[in-house]
Amino acid sequence: MTTGRFISLEGGEGAGKSTQLRALARTLRERGLDVLETREPGGSDGAEAIRTLLLTGGADRWSPRAEALLFAAARADHIEKTIRPALARGAWVLSDRFLDSSRAYQGQGELSDSDIVALHRIGSADFLPDRTLVLTLPDAVAADRARARDGDHVDRIGGRDSRFHHAVADAFARFAAQESERVRAIDASGTTEAVTQRLVDALADLLP
Amino acid sequence: MTTGRFISLEGGEGAGKSTQLRALARTLRERGLDVLETREPGGSDGAEAIRTLLLTGGADRWSPRAEALLFAAARADHIEKTIRPALARGAWVLSDRFLDSSRAYQGQGELSDSDIVALHRIGSADFLPDRTLVLTLPDAVAADRARARDGDHVDRIGGRDSRFHHAVADAFARFAAQESERVRAIDASGTTEAVTQRLVDALADLLP
Repeated sequence: MTTGRFISLEGGEGAGKSTQLRALARTLRERGLDVLETREPGGSDGAEAIRTLLLTGGADRWSPRAEALLFAAARADHIEKTIRPALARGAWVLSDRFLDSSRAYQGQGELSDSDIVALHRIGSADFLPDRTLVLTLPDAVAADRARARDGDHVDRIGGRDSRFHHAVADAFARFAAQESERVRAIDASGTTEAVTQRLVDALADLLP
Repeated sequence: MTTGRFISLEGGEGAGKSTQLRALARTLRERGLDVLETREPGGSDGAEAIRTLLLTGGADRWSPRAEALLFAAARADHIEKTIRPALARGAWVLSDRFLDSSRAYQGQGELSDSDIVALHRIGSADFLPDRTLVLTLPDAVAADRARARDGDHVDRIGGRDSRFHHAVADAFARFAAQESERVRAIDASGTTEAVTQRLVDALADLLP
């Protein structure tokens, strides 16, 4: 019985995470792997209940600090109830967003990156993905894609300005530079198939 | 325009916090003070929504770590949306439980006291009561009172064994010893009136 692998997909709005997560899962299943697709915030009963609190209501429903604590609580539940049990049975777990999204999105304002990391240490004992794949697009392309998909229907997290999304992209690039073994920036331009192949290539050393 | 005062009432189950909070509020109002009565977890719209998540479901619904993060998130919202605005208008805020309950209850298990304090720093910038009054009873008396009140209807927090409640009482006593200016142990035996008078006496230096 081998232990599984935990892979997170990250990136700004419109980078194609959801599409690529499904495509990557299909590819890994074709190789005979047991694959669990999950997402944050959410991925377990408790975390989905917290997700509802986080994504509904006005933009000022939660302060940045309360929001960061709620994301950390949801993540702790997601890890304990969903991710760890799947890894224990040997599955590959693919998560649409994880800790690095909290660092990139909530770490822009009054909370520091070290605060976000401390919440993860206290909540989840520093549990990290085996690999984090950051789908990366030029800002203008990502904004066009997000607009084409969502129109004017944006939630509390998506409804921010372009300067914010640029800062998020910078943060992801910084994580890839600082933690180059775990975090890999993946060019998200081109066909769906071409991008999926880049993701598989970036997992080559982990695949059986 | 004077700034208000923030007072928390603490103590184990059955110590009489709710009764004493109402009696203390009445006494302070008779002295002409604007008094806001509140409670944790809860005390604001967001925090009450989190309270519902915390107090419903089975005993294993939340891990201790997820629970501690949810309490800290509720507290951050309570402070920002309810406590600080009331203090700014000059009110006295009386809260049934606050940070020290998290330290006494969640700090017993796999989380350390410094973890709980770190969550409060990140979530609420170390915001503390002007005074914390810990209602203190011999364990046996407190257990009898709690049983008489709740019978077999206990929630996720109340439904623990006597060793746990003893450890909680020890923790509160330790806080009173370590932070003797802020935290005062108050003898909760005797008549309601006698106990209320002890609470007022313990606030004498703060009263106008």
